[in-house]
Amino acid sequence: MTEDRRTVRLKPKAEARAIRHGFPWVYADELVTDRRTQGLAPGALAVLEDGERRPLGLVTVNVKSKIIARMLDRDPEAVIDQAWFAARLQRALDLRARLFDTPFYRLVHAEADGLPGVVIDRFGDAAVVQPNAAWAEDHIDALAAALRQVTGVSTVIKNGTGRSRSLEGLAEETVVLSGGVSAPIPVPMNGATYMADLMGGQKTGLFYDQRPNHAFAARLARGARVLDVFTHVGGFALAALAGGADQALAVDASAAALTLATEGARASGMGDRFSTRQGDAFDVLETLGQEGAQFDLVICDPPAFAPAKPALEAGLRAYERIARLAAPLVAPGGYLVLCSCSHAADLSSFRNASARGIGRGGRRGQLIHTGFAGPDHPLLPQLAESGYLKSLFFRLD
Amino acid sequence: MTEDRRTVRLKPKAEARAIRHGFPWVYADELVTDRRTQGLAPGALAVLEDGERRPLGLVTVNVKSKIIARMLDRDPEAVIDQAWFAARLQRALDLRARLFDTPFYRLVHAEADGLPGVVIDRFGDAAVVQPNAAWAEDHIDALAAALRQVTGVSTVIKNGTGRSRSLEGLAEETVVLSGGVSAPIPVPMNGATYMADLMGGQKTGLFYDQRPNHAFAARLARGARVLDVFTHVGGFALAALAGGADQALAVDASAAALTLATEGARASGMGDRFSTRQGDAFDVLETLGQEGAQFDLVICDPPAFAPAKPALEAGLRAYERIARLAAPLVAPGGYLVLCSCSHAADLSSFRNASARGIGRGGRRGQLIHTGFAGPDHPLLPQLAESGYLKSLFFRLD
Repeated sequence: MTEDRRTVRLKPKAEARAIRHGFPWVYADELVTDRRTQGLAPGALAVLEDGERRPLGLVTVNVKSKIIARMLDRDPEAVIDQAWFAARLQRALDLRARLFDTPFYRLVHAEADGLPGVVIDRFGDAAVVQPNAAWAEDHIDALAAALRQVTGVSTVIKNGTGRSRSLEGLAEETVVLSGGVSAPIPVPMNGATYMADLMGGQKTGLFYDQRPNHAFAARLARGARVLDVFTHVGGFALAALAGGADQALAVDASAAALTLATEGARASGMGDRFSTRQGDAFDVLETLGQEGAQFDLVICDPPAFAPAKPALEAGLRAYERIARLAAPLVAPGGYLVLCSCSHAADLSSFRNASARGIGRGGRRGQLIHTGFAGPDHPLLPQLAESGYLKSLFFRLD
Repeated sequence: MTEDRRTVRLKPKAEARAIRHGFPWVYADELVTDRRTQGLAPGALAVLEDGERRPLGLVTVNVKSKIIARMLDRDPEAVIDQAWFAARLQRALDLRARLFDTPFYRLVHAEADGLPGVVIDRFGDAAVVQPNAAWAEDHIDALAAALRQVTGVSTVIKNGTGRSRSLEGLAEETVVLSGGVSAPIPVPMNGATYMADLMGGQKTGLFYDQRPNHAFAARLARGARVLDVFTHVGGFALAALAGGADQALAVDASAAALTLATEGARASGMGDRFSTRQGDAFDVLETLGQEGAQFDLVICDPPAFAPAKPALEAGLRAYERIARLAAPLVAPGGYLVLCSCSHAADLSSFRNASARGIGRGGRRGQLIHTGFAGPDHPLLPQLAESGYLKSLFFRLD
């Protein structure tokens, strides 16, 4: 290292031990924010020092964020270039290659894969990068080059629609960095084929996080009538059909998502057992209740009702309402799967809201399984409380 | 109902709502314990009434227990006979038949399957009943008859070694109620064959609860050198070998368990890749560390270090020590699986103790998966906090 590196420093009283033990973040009130630090552009790199000026590592700084610095490398002299990205990506790839037979997975899950704020989903020969942090946007070319080098993908898409990007001062834009895609990509998962729209879909086009929960639902699906509410591109419904369900009704507010779901059902050779209903989930659940509809397996996988603390109470009420409306649609001895991807609603709160809703829906049951996001969504042990996805599998009397 | 039923009554201020909403227990301080109630023999049946003498259901009473009454049936006029047991067992069987291809599973998991204190494990044509509550001991003949009727098993063994039996004033005894077994039973699970000793083994002879976690470990095992500490009858080791591990070293303090594990490895056709080391787990971990041994997959699945609140602090220290001793044995990029079956150590405490131990062992890593007991171990939603089994899968740098 010849270049002079900027430094930022922990306040004298700030506890450096957590960071030394692997905690990857510095909160705003722990850092000396003198004028020089205030002047750093979002995403600037700097050497983090403890109160006694001993270096702790290389961080990326965003003075406008509550998390003012994020650890990039424990080596304060690390150089963030293509080789650096390649090493991180190789480590991430090794795990996924061990876990999955086909190259369809979340390749990078931010902090836990050593790339704060960066999400990369792989779809065979294509990858979608969400650089939800300014430092990653600054280094996007080196990142994309390393991605092609390590994985061999030819198409790299930058998806700039993440919620957190505005906090980082980043523009909303989806750009093809290399290669290109002209149509939805077929994704093999749990014996079904899903259609992922990498350019226009929600997030990166497909939610890989529910894969093990889709698989568990499929184990319950033999011969079943299935209702999949908030199906997106067919999430639980197609897995259940592949698992032997008799028929599946998929509900979503988005006509575009339902079109992809229907294409997926056809591509899976299950189009004749698959139907859709477009509309607001609460409305559809109420209507089905009035119709006296009964299903052997009902899944509700809504968007985050409680993404952050202030929305927690209203969010838990929404989860309870979903459970209350869905429970009566489950035939006796059938199964109800309730999911939350809300960071703010922890497992215990979500489970209680769900159980309350089931009770108010006039039903009782057993909890047979609790599932989280799949292993291509690793967590840093120090941030594991933030595991956002919970799927509860109930059997109702 | 012609017979006069005894009644027990909630105190006027006691909250009947939780019980009406499915909570299955009455605590001692919630019940009127007059002389008549004090005189009830452990396991006596009685109708539970609320403070206004409205019946809530049929309960079993044990005035010596902190949980003074447990709900048997919401119908206060229910008759506990063979037909009653058969209905409960059929409901339990329906779930397992949907989940598993072969009849090897926990058939009844106490409260959640409607039989408080009763555990039944099925091994093909044989079943082992643990009636860990006096009411079940009183009705053991009707229960055993219903079990034969519903499942078709011929051998029924009563295993009376459960910790909670002494609280109920029950004797420790293992008795063949019908049929018989002359040798360990081969149990197919996750592609391996385990040998279960139904008469002399720990608990019912085999722990079914770890099945999904064994399966997840097997996904990480291809080509791996595996160390399975506290292996019992080969738990993680045989699953890992079936998943393609190169070799597995299984450690246990019990020579009898290791003999069964070795028999299982041979029965699975994997005897040449399987070896054992008998001894105290902490000693063996330290010795392996001194030898500089390295493994690609290390699993530690100890007995409950913190079965109840008073043992929590010491238990968490023991979990941390296990993690600290095991982490250095994991090759770079390898996997460490840490398990707890302690009721008192919740997920968050256990995860923190594990992460601390890994850090003190000089390692860092990602948490890629958190698993609980399998779906043949259902929970009442109202008691789900008591989910005891946690398995954490770490990948270490």
